[in-house]
Amino acid sequence: MDLVNHQFRLAARPVGLPKPSDWQYTEEPVPEPGEGEVLVKLLYISLDPAMRGWMNDGRSYIAPVGIGETMRALAAGEVLVSNHPGLAPGDHVTGLLGVQEYAVANGNAVMKVDPALAPLPVYLGTLGMPGMTAYFGLLEIGRPVAGETVVVSGAAGAVGGVVGQIAKLKGCRVVGIAGGAEKCRYLTEELGFDAAIDYKAEDVLAGLGEHCPKGIDVYFDNVGGEILDAALARLARNARVIICGAISQYNATGAVAGPSNYLSLLVNHASMTGFVVSDYGDRYVEGAREMAGWLADGKLKPREDIAEGLENFPDTLLRLFAGENTGKLVLKLAAD
Amino acid sequence: MDLVNHQFRLAARPVGLPKPSDWQYTEEPVPEPGEGEVLVKLLYISLDPAMRGWMNDGRSYIAPVGIGETMRALAAGEVLVSNHPGLAPGDHVTGLLGVQEYAVANGNAVMKVDPALAPLPVYLGTLGMPGMTAYFGLLEIGRPVAGETVVVSGAAGAVGGVVGQIAKLKGCRVVGIAGGAEKCRYLTEELGFDAAIDYKAEDVLAGLGEHCPKGIDVYFDNVGGEILDAALARLARNARVIICGAISQYNATGAVAGPSNYLSLLVNHASMTGFVVSDYGDRYVEGAREMAGWLADGKLKPREDIAEGLENFPDTLLRLFAGENTGKLVLKLAAD
Repeated sequence: MDLVNHQFRLAARPVGLPKPSDWQYTEEPVPEPGEGEVLVKLLYISLDPAMRGWMNDGRSYIAPVGIGETMRALAAGEVLVSNHPGLAPGDHVTGLLGVQEYAVANGNAVMKVDPALAPLPVYLGTLGMPGMTAYFGLLEIGRPVAGETVVVSGAAGAVGGVVGQIAKLKGCRVVGIAGGAEKCRYLTEELGFDAAIDYKAEDVLAGLGEHCPKGIDVYFDNVGGEILDAALARLARNARVIICGAISQYNATGAVAGPSNYLSLLVNHASMTGFVVSDYGDRYVEGAREMAGWLADGKLKPREDIAEGLENFPDTLLRLFAGENTGKLVLKLAAD
Repeated sequence: MDLVNHQFRLAARPVGLPKPSDWQYTEEPVPEPGEGEVLVKLLYISLDPAMRGWMNDGRSYIAPVGIGETMRALAAGEVLVSNHPGLAPGDHVTGLLGVQEYAVANGNAVMKVDPALAPLPVYLGTLGMPGMTAYFGLLEIGRPVAGETVVVSGAAGAVGGVVGQIAKLKGCRVVGIAGGAEKCRYLTEELGFDAAIDYKAEDVLAGLGEHCPKGIDVYFDNVGGEILDAALARLARNARVIICGAISQYNATGAVAGPSNYLSLLVNHASMTGFVVSDYGDRYVEGAREMAGWLADGKLKPREDIAEGLENFPDTLLRLFAGENTGKLVLKLAAD
């Protein structure tokens, strides 16, 4: 085949934000796929906040990426060679293919997708892991009821934007928290949120008081830190707080800031429940079917933020933690 | 009647631990009960950690005690005069009668109890608010299943001891966290806990690792702070954390310490739910009936820690926050 592969490997465990020396850029021949395997040419790599956690040592919901290993990432690509009966060259697939140009994967570990139904990046966003995260987290843990007030942080991100749109579909009042006027405009004007709070320019606690006059029934948290505390201070009785992430804390070099206002749970008979999307892995088909229907009906508006070039991976990943992306952040490697 | 009443009134809102100048000891004539009211001679006053919260200003599940008002407290006493058709002189009742010798109360706001079935202090403990707190918090929020591991903090206190005993009745492995060797001995030898961790002498995180080899399925928290964080670090998948109280934080003069390890909820698909016992107020009869049956069968062992003399109220209350009581702390005012 004589194809050359390039990849980013984890060179060191980051302290705080990942820095250039935490990565090793390597070149090697593309391996041959074995029995049951496929060779995939990557077209889009997904950049997700969860990747920061995968770089840390210690027990978590998934094993850490080992030092010297190719960085773990979800990606979408095209099958070049298949030794798997369910896949043929030219098929498009998504899966944990890593931060590299070519991947050999077990054919059972990738999912075939149809780029005629939705652009490939959408399979990494609204129809992918972030979309399933929003769907199961909001509906299974949040259980929003029409008329209730749903607040989501990181609202202009890949998960948050979908959370708010699903909550609107369910008849809820939806308030998003995001950084910057442009993101807030996107939430209210393009996604139909009832209100948006710009945490970089506004007092979040005051904004929640103004926009949630009956308190918060469902709070979907992607950020942690002070914004989580502000939301806790505004809970309604029987509120459900969904802990999906804590992007404000992922690069902390000290202890994670725990929510000082957690006793609001006690006063309000409220709950705070955490999850990772793989907890609902056996129900992805159900979620993807309903989400695809909403997408086809124009009820969900996907949005991608597309950077280009494998060599830009380290800097592009940092955009997540600087809050610079709107919608699903992906790295485009080659034309579809 | 010419009876003289003495009471403790809130003189100032405490900063940190209540100090003598936060109280005013007053004397006044006992008022006449009006239409539908009863005059009660108090025999036992209940001392509960929640009282500290009632002394603070600000929105909570119950209005704060006003400056100059008689301190709110649950108590048991004897009816001296009744203008209520359901109560007669000589009846015994419990209710929010306050820190005083005599109380006039609406007859509908007190509950008649039978001292022949259980000693009066038990109606302030295992059959009273702490018992109902343990019962509904553990069973409704914790939903323990036989074979699961239940951990309770403040385990030798009025609520914690009952939580552990109910969990044993339900077939769970029960580990208590308490301060001091004598309390730990009480938990394992008298109450039948499987293990006890002395937080004053042991590393709680290590102790939980040792005594909960499969992780914690249900954690009933009465204390907050570092012990809550240790428990969060040991959660099993689908764990339920019950936030009942945070006695380590009630006298904090700065911000409450939020649980740094709250992202363990995310990793373990776990929940943390708060409540106050009045959330289950419409089901007390159901709880009290089952608890009374267990008590009659010898399956629950009540324990009271009895101090004497109204004048000792301020110092006795502080015993709660110093962790000096074992079982239900009550102040005895007069012979039953």
